[in-house]
Amino acid sequence: MNPSRFLEARRRLAKVARVTPLVQSKLDPGLHFKAENLQVTGSFKIRAAYNQMVQLDQDQRDRGIVTSSSGNFAQAVAYAAKLLGISAKIVMMENSNPLKVSGTRRWGGEVVFCESRFEARDRTVQRIREEEDRSTVHPYDHAAAVAGNGSAGLEILEQLDQVENVVVPISGGGLISGIAVAVKERKPSVKVWGIQPRGSNATYLSFRKREPVALEQADTVADGLTVTRPGSLTFPLILRYVDGVEIVEEDSILYSVGHLMGEEKLVVEPSGAVPLAAILEGKVPLRNTVLVLSGGNMGQEVMSRSLDLFSEGRSPRR
Amino acid sequence: MNPSRFLEARRRLAKVARVTPLVQSKLDPGLHFKAENLQVTGSFKIRAAYNQMVQLDQDQRDRGIVTSSSGNFAQAVAYAAKLLGISAKIVMMENSNPLKVSGTRRWGGEVVFCESRFEARDRTVQRIREEEDRSTVHPYDHAAAVAGNGSAGLEILEQLDQVENVVVPISGGGLISGIAVAVKERKPSVKVWGIQPRGSNATYLSFRKREPVALEQADTVADGLTVTRPGSLTFPLILRYVDGVEIVEEDSILYSVGHLMGEEKLVVEPSGAVPLAAILEGKVPLRNTVLVLSGGNMGQEVMSRSLDLFSEGRSPRR
Repeated sequence: MNPSRFLEARRRLAKVARVTPLVQSKLDPGLHFKAENLQVTGSFKIRAAYNQMVQLDQDQRDRGIVTSSSGNFAQAVAYAAKLLGISAKIVMMENSNPLKVSGTRRWGGEVVFCESRFEARDRTVQRIREEEDRSTVHPYDHAAAVAGNGSAGLEILEQLDQVENVVVPISGGGLISGIAVAVKERKPSVKVWGIQPRGSNATYLSFRKREPVALEQADTVADGLTVTRPGSLTFPLILRYVDGVEIVEEDSILYSVGHLMGEEKLVVEPSGAVPLAAILEGKVPLRNTVLVLSGGNMGQEVMSRSLDLFSEGRSPRR
Repeated sequence: MNPSRFLEARRRLAKVARVTPLVQSKLDPGLHFKAENLQVTGSFKIRAAYNQMVQLDQDQRDRGIVTSSSGNFAQAVAYAAKLLGISAKIVMMENSNPLKVSGTRRWGGEVVFCESRFEARDRTVQRIREEEDRSTVHPYDHAAAVAGNGSAGLEILEQLDQVENVVVPISGGGLISGIAVAVKERKPSVKVWGIQPRGSNATYLSFRKREPVALEQADTVADGLTVTRPGSLTFPLILRYVDGVEIVEEDSILYSVGHLMGEEKLVVEPSGAVPLAAILEGKVPLRNTVLVLSGGNMGQEVMSRSLDLFSEGRSPRR
């Protein structure tokens, strides 16, 4: 992937996405948060969505787009569609987080529900694409999505000169491949680590086998990390650029959400808290480490459970 | 107050306090948050505490300090005392927020409880000072506290070139007087607004009368804003440098806490959310406006009530 793609993406995103702050953790002076939960629509996804959609030609814009999402990409696409004046249909599983559904509708996105299986999502997108002649926008498996996400990597390099480790949640792999390529093409000494929940570990298994492994189903509190097979564009990038992929436990994830709210004063959803869970479980190095907090969209029930775990002091075992 | 004091304070605080980020609000592109909830110990108070305590001589340090606080200053003093190797006794009212009490103890501060009245606090501090020959550190009514707080004002000027309005919570007046003097000595065109809860409005009443008014008691969910008469150092500075003082309703405060968590992904306690309540009530101008979110220390019960109000969409009336 040509490094100039990341600079182009960054230029395109300059007036749309935020340069989110890098916040030092209270746990350790060598630990930092890239606070993408403070991004517009509450997650990094605007980087992937807008960078794809702004490259559609006028004819494609007129015909509208269709995509699928567990929720954060949906909200970002709806927001970008509003900015660009494009009609957007977004396929979401019936069991999607209601907060993410209402967030999507709020920006004018039209939500189409499908069965709660990963394959049903793809099928529904294909059907709508053919029936309505819409363009598809992909949540991760597209060069413009990867390049858009890479802009966060460039920001990290500028925000922390001495960065040595970057830790990133993995679902379809769009965020980590963008960040890994952008960071390592500029500074190959930086290590990039990917984290998955134990209940949704397709890329973890695939990375160990060095070939794609598909899961039957995802089962995790991290509702943004439910992709059950690695992307065909993103997986080769992960194999080439990522230093390690680790898994974390559900309780560690919720405890991390609680720590982030109670101690760091940041609202981060379970999917965005898996990098901290990996630190608490001792799975990744803590030395000039940046944890990418990918999003902050969650309901009150998850907040309460997380704060309970945190205030009981049930920190994950290393 | 000599402007060089603020630069000195800033230099002293450079390795201790954070330059907290300025975060754009999702409500309006002209609205920004100075996120002091992300400050060490979860509030701006380290600026006031450390800048005073680092100026104590060795003899004073050896004898230790005594102070009083509703909680956020207590935590900051305990933290600064640990850094400086000073013994700290902190007088807190019996009805203090338990989270703030445990936060204070965690840094090694010794908490001494007193009756839940503002006067009892001062009396207990005086008694300990005399009996134990400790130095007092004041939560707001001290030039070094005001100068320390002013460092946040210098940061705002650098973070938002075009700033026109700065909105600040008022309790004893230490934060607003520091910010107002620091900002206006450099850029007199900026307007500075102070906000109090209706249930703790001593400075609001005093500002209108142009002379100090004392309340019998404070009654507000904003447990960091309970000072019942303006400071003798801070009030003249407020009269000279502050453009207006407004009050906000309890429900607006809680709704603002809910908005900040649910929408902006920031954990901000009621005391820190009063500037946003003032925006929502239409009490202060929204034009290149910076709201100082002074702290983020609150319990789960207040979080839940606030999120309930927010999700019910019970936005304050203008």
